[in-house]
Amino acid sequence: MTKNNVLIYDTTLRDGTQGEQVTFSAEEKLRIARKLDDVHFHYIEGGWPGSNPKDMRFFEMAKTVTFKNARLTAFSSTRKPHIRPEACPNLKALVLAGTPAVAIFGKAWDLHVTDILKIDPEENLSMIRDSIAYMKARGKEVLFDAEHFFDGYKANPRYALRVVKTAWEAGADRIVFCDTNGGSMPYEVGDILKKVASVIPGEKSGIHVHNDCGLAVANTIAAVREGVSLVQGTINGYGERCGNADLISVIGNLQMKMKMTCLPAESIRQLTNLSLYVSDVANIPPLMARPFVGRSAFAHKGGVHVSAVAKNSAAYEHMQPELVGNSRRVLVSDMAGKSNIAYKAKALGIDLNKKNALGKVVHQVKLMEDKGFQFDAADGSLSVLMKKAIGEFVEPFTLECFSVVTSRMLDNPCLSQATIKISVGGEEELTAAEGNGPVNALDHALRKALTKFYPQIREMHLVDFKVRTLEGSEGTAAGVRVLLDSTDGSEVWSTTGVSENIIEASWQALIDSIEYKLSKDKKRN
Amino acid sequence: MTKNNVLIYDTTLRDGTQGEQVTFSAEEKLRIARKLDDVHFHYIEGGWPGSNPKDMRFFEMAKTVTFKNARLTAFSSTRKPHIRPEACPNLKALVLAGTPAVAIFGKAWDLHVTDILKIDPEENLSMIRDSIAYMKARGKEVLFDAEHFFDGYKANPRYALRVVKTAWEAGADRIVFCDTNGGSMPYEVGDILKKVASVIPGEKSGIHVHNDCGLAVANTIAAVREGVSLVQGTINGYGERCGNADLISVIGNLQMKMKMTCLPAESIRQLTNLSLYVSDVANIPPLMARPFVGRSAFAHKGGVHVSAVAKNSAAYEHMQPELVGNSRRVLVSDMAGKSNIAYKAKALGIDLNKKNALGKVVHQVKLMEDKGFQFDAADGSLSVLMKKAIGEFVEPFTLECFSVVTSRMLDNPCLSQATIKISVGGEEELTAAEGNGPVNALDHALRKALTKFYPQIREMHLVDFKVRTLEGSEGTAAGVRVLLDSTDGSEVWSTTGVSENIIEASWQALIDSIEYKLSKDKKRN
Repeated sequence: MTKNNVLIYDTTLRDGTQGEQVTFSAEEKLRIARKLDDVHFHYIEGGWPGSNPKDMRFFEMAKTVTFKNARLTAFSSTRKPHIRPEACPNLKALVLAGTPAVAIFGKAWDLHVTDILKIDPEENLSMIRDSIAYMKARGKEVLFDAEHFFDGYKANPRYALRVVKTAWEAGADRIVFCDTNGGSMPYEVGDILKKVASVIPGEKSGIHVHNDCGLAVANTIAAVREGVSLVQGTINGYGERCGNADLISVIGNLQMKMKMTCLPAESIRQLTNLSLYVSDVANIPPLMARPFVGRSAFAHKGGVHVSAVAKNSAAYEHMQPELVGNSRRVLVSDMAGKSNIAYKAKALGIDLNKKNALGKVVHQVKLMEDKGFQFDAADGSLSVLMKKAIGEFVEPFTLECFSVVTSRMLDNPCLSQATIKISVGGEEELTAAEGNGPVNALDHALRKALTKFYPQIREMHLVDFKVRTLEGSEGTAAGVRVLLDSTDGSEVWSTTGVSENIIEASWQALIDSIEYKLSKDKKRN
Repeated sequence: MTKNNVLIYDTTLRDGTQGEQVTFSAEEKLRIARKLDDVHFHYIEGGWPGSNPKDMRFFEMAKTVTFKNARLTAFSSTRKPHIRPEACPNLKALVLAGTPAVAIFGKAWDLHVTDILKIDPEENLSMIRDSIAYMKARGKEVLFDAEHFFDGYKANPRYALRVVKTAWEAGADRIVFCDTNGGSMPYEVGDILKKVASVIPGEKSGIHVHNDCGLAVANTIAAVREGVSLVQGTINGYGERCGNADLISVIGNLQMKMKMTCLPAESIRQLTNLSLYVSDVANIPPLMARPFVGRSAFAHKGGVHVSAVAKNSAAYEHMQPELVGNSRRVLVSDMAGKSNIAYKAKALGIDLNKKNALGKVVHQVKLMEDKGFQFDAADGSLSVLMKKAIGEFVEPFTLECFSVVTSRMLDNPCLSQATIKISVGGEEELTAAEGNGPVNALDHALRKALTKFYPQIREMHLVDFKVRTLEGSEGTAAGVRVLLDSTDGSEVWSTTGVSENIIEASWQALIDSIEYKLSKDKKRN
């Protein structure tokens, strides 16, 4: 590893889940871990096995997965006071997690030792020493997280240094300096790490900071400038209170601006996708203004900016958006709308020059977006809309009526049943089906009815169903936007619907999904 | 003014409105300007009168207002190339705006001069010189915004310095160094300003940076450390692309952490209110993790943190939340130990020591969270659960059955109707109701049935309805979590439900909401 390399340590699955709105199931954690491995992150902290059964279940599941690039890491406190490490349930769980690396956190601020743990400062050092030695003896790579190191150093530098020296001498492979409360200024982080460098060399240290002052990214960079070679953070900066350092920005800055190496260039081009993926799994709307990867990050509104960027993109862009997988957007003019749609049609293989459909599609998309539709993530619906506009599409069936009933008797589970009547070329079909909910029942009934006419419908099924409330001001009468992901094994496509009625919105998305499948197969034949 | 004072220059009403989602009417601008004046901001940039009629109307309206603390400022480019200032419509509009101070921006990066404006670099200097002299002759305080100064300095330091020298010699009262593309690192900002200090003294300079690298707050602080005495930014960091420096964080850091003086202490206590006020007027949901003022900024989720904060708030808080008008919150989640639940019960006014209910509640919460429940944002459901655990609660009714039907005929809109049968003390009630969707219909029917027995149900209604899909891996059969917000005019409470069936999940949340209302009213009586 050269001086210019920085290791990326992700703690989205542990510290990230301390964020107020962030919850992942064990399965979701595993999906995110795989994604982080795919983009060549170096460490993935999966959870705190001693703290809750979900995290333990995650580590059990993870044992069946081979990570190609990342080292999976489990997190724990030091042993509890006044017991042997062997007797500590936290450390036992840490061993059981079965990861190649572990992170152990200990107190570096005497206030925590005396006021919170209420133990002797020497016992705190013993806890750190014993816990590290115990894990080293079991063959683990050990990272020691010096919790509250910066606050500790400001209050009692002698004790804070004794803590990290103790950890180092006990065999820790790396000391991670933590700004746990997120209250430090970048110049403080820089100054303190300068003083620490003689005790712990930069190539054996790491940084972990919180964003309570809006300075987590800056503090991380300040640490790297002092030679620290591992950065901890989370995707999108999710985490307790104001969050952790956002690894998306940290990596963007280190690699694109400071010309250091964290990840392969191909992974950097995945940053936008990675940020959206994690926000999708967390079901937290992505931040439009997020540096590097946000939808607005390279969006130009002011007229001066728009015309300048058309001449030379460097005029109002600090870098090329494509390098992080993002793209330029122009927000003002009608012309901008046209060029966006034209660009999209080309990508979908649809020729909107036919029948002068471009203007018509732009107009229709604008009307629909005004009602709450959003096509960014619904290519399937957009494709069907475009094909209809150029007359390349015949409605595959006519809906006569449907009805979907959900009922419950006493304490029994809810039952959902749908009946539907459609006609194709004058021939009617009436079917009924059940499901785990009203939309599921309706989906089953519709596909059952259509299979008679279009057997290829059997190849497809839904893989995801998302609902977002629009304008949260009228309770259950508020509008909803539904997003469906469907697949037929060879492709995944997304469709959308908007209505005050969730069943109606789901119906629109179901229809688009089926029409997309049928139009695509027609093309194939 | 002492060395420790920093002037606050707000550009929410000008640069802020270049943000993708940000639009203000002239009236809204005036309301925000008054608010900023109330909290003692020093400068309020109201708009660019030459660029659009709305901004001109704002300045007309503002002439009738007396600002107690702030200087109203109007913004403009320099004169256009090759004309006299008197002939330039932008400068004429700037004079007409009638403000005591004006900000004029000019190009400090030769790339913009030669590639975008396509003019001679000397003409650019003349435009700057003429425009400033013209406004000074009309008695204005003139701030010169050196656009792209940092990029310009990196590319051609000689020319960038000539630009600011020209502005200074033409009589500008202050030179504002701009990182227009937001691509500079804090150490670059610091280094460059060190070199500039001999040309423009710190007490006559300002800083204006964008957040494209997530470093706007850090860059602002770096500039202040070099002696710059005026900071430009926007409330909540609204602005083009990734936004401007967030003045909320800038002021929080300068005043609370760096012990400088920007505003009176009373104004600092208004920061939370100010942030929420502007996000309300902009109709952009407030960022929960916003430093200092966000709803999550002092929220504690991890069990270790919660028990520590109860002992000493400094343990996991970098400052007292009350100083910026914020407050501490404790969240309940699967990481929660007994201490979270105990703290929460206390806040909800429930005594879990009764019947040793604490352990039972912790156990039940963990089981439910494993199924996908999440109580962080569902105090109503948690409160009902706790009251049941201590036996302080009698089920207010028994459900016999319900059925909710959504149907559609041809192209008519969907219809949703619900029937429900409940009994209270042996007396049955069967009702039906319609709604804009199945949940809305069920809500109407249930409340209609209950009103006969509990007339106070009439006081309450739903204000928000959120759906989140859990485990997005099985299409419409995936589980869903529903979150409902209800109000009775005097309080808002949130309840939750989880099921594979969205109707069942909504039903659970509806029941909790009604039970919460009834239990709270019982207490009142």
